[in-house]
Amino acid sequence: MIMIHKTLYSYWRSSASYRVRIALNLKEIPYEQQAINLLEQGQYSNDYLTLNPQGLVPFYVEQSDKTTLHLSQSLAIMDYLDEAYPEKPLLPIDIQQRARIRSIAQIIACDVHPLNNSGVLNYLDHHLSATETNKHAWYQHWIAKGFVAIEKQLPDLLAGHTFSLIDKPGYLEAVIIPQIYNARRFNCPLDHYPCLLALDAACMELDAFKKAVPEQQPDAPSSL
Amino acid sequence: MIMIHKTLYSYWRSSASYRVRIALNLKEIPYEQQAINLLEQGQYSNDYLTLNPQGLVPFYVEQSDKTTLHLSQSLAIMDYLDEAYPEKPLLPIDIQQRARIRSIAQIIACDVHPLNNSGVLNYLDHHLSATETNKHAWYQHWIAKGFVAIEKQLPDLLAGHTFSLIDKPGYLEAVIIPQIYNARRFNCPLDHYPCLLALDAACMELDAFKKAVPEQQPDAPSSL
Repeated sequence: MIMIHKTLYSYWRSSASYRVRIALNLKEIPYEQQAINLLEQGQYSNDYLTLNPQGLVPFYVEQSDKTTLHLSQSLAIMDYLDEAYPEKPLLPIDIQQRARIRSIAQIIACDVHPLNNSGVLNYLDHHLSATETNKHAWYQHWIAKGFVAIEKQLPDLLAGHTFSLIDKPGYLEAVIIPQIYNARRFNCPLDHYPCLLALDAACMELDAFKKAVPEQQPDAPSSL
Repeated sequence: MIMIHKTLYSYWRSSASYRVRIALNLKEIPYEQQAINLLEQGQYSNDYLTLNPQGLVPFYVEQSDKTTLHLSQSLAIMDYLDEAYPEKPLLPIDIQQRARIRSIAQIIACDVHPLNNSGVLNYLDHHLSATETNKHAWYQHWIAKGFVAIEKQLPDLLAGHTFSLIDKPGYLEAVIIPQIYNARRFNCPLDHYPCLLALDAACMELDAFKKAVPEQQPDAPSSL
């Protein structure tokens, strides 16, 4: 038997790390967490930049006797896990449905989250003299744009089922739930998104999601 | 024989549309283009928002006698094309190599391009009083961050070959080449990225890339 050691470099409050934690939990893949403290600029240490030149989390390392895989980008990690470990799939078999799910995941991963991550908010602060009010409006603006588009598409996508895989959640939920967590953290109004809220409530009943919550991670401050 | 009609809603200068044009050309899939004029706010017309609630390009529609697929997000469209039409693949068979390519594509699609698209530049302008100098520095900042990370990873990924599929380009090049086009358009210095430039030069010899160039599209202004 080949031993494969899996490590996820992550930060408790990084919502892209949160996605991968959910995916690993849903697939019941054991892994080790290595905390990178973004508040203390841990992502810019020489050691970490040697490992991951982009200096972001999450970062996934898989080591066997024969090969080492170094992988950045949460969706690439999720697609890899689903291809390398096809049991307990995150995506459905139907090619068109897979595509619809990837499209909605990318609305979040490409058009909402990148605008609201800490590096961008810091840039607005330092280089464009953005006030807290400016940054809050910016944050809410991009979440609302993404959520409006997703809310319109969810009923067709779910077709009356609770989850994207009919009786269980997968890729779609692993990306949506962390973004709803972020929206709550920044007090974004969510009343206009009943389908997103119903999906969130159904997922939060499940252990795979409960165990992935930021506050439950080993590097979360103990005062929470 | 089932007739399948394929339409790409796009804008000549949209680099996410440019990615999908390259992918369709590489796979030799015939398609119709429908221009959405972003300068004239065509993406916010009622008709277009009914079709694509996110109001962005590219948007891909595939219509057969039996089904209609509506798909936003360039990478989701590319993954769909590769799964639905497996001839002339965009991604290699090796699962780890596929993952590495998706990761680099997402550095561009998630961490470079979304920060520099026209909607974001307009927001900086209207809500944060950004000057042209501010916007230029912003643009260059995010491109440089992404390109530095990609340049470091390219030699290992290509392993001495010209292209990501050894003797031909695919998914990786369909995402990288439009971002290099954007970088040139905004006068971003590229001297520090010899591997990216070599890949660009090799791709621009090929018809699939030449035909996808923004200035060659039917909706490009005739004065160019």
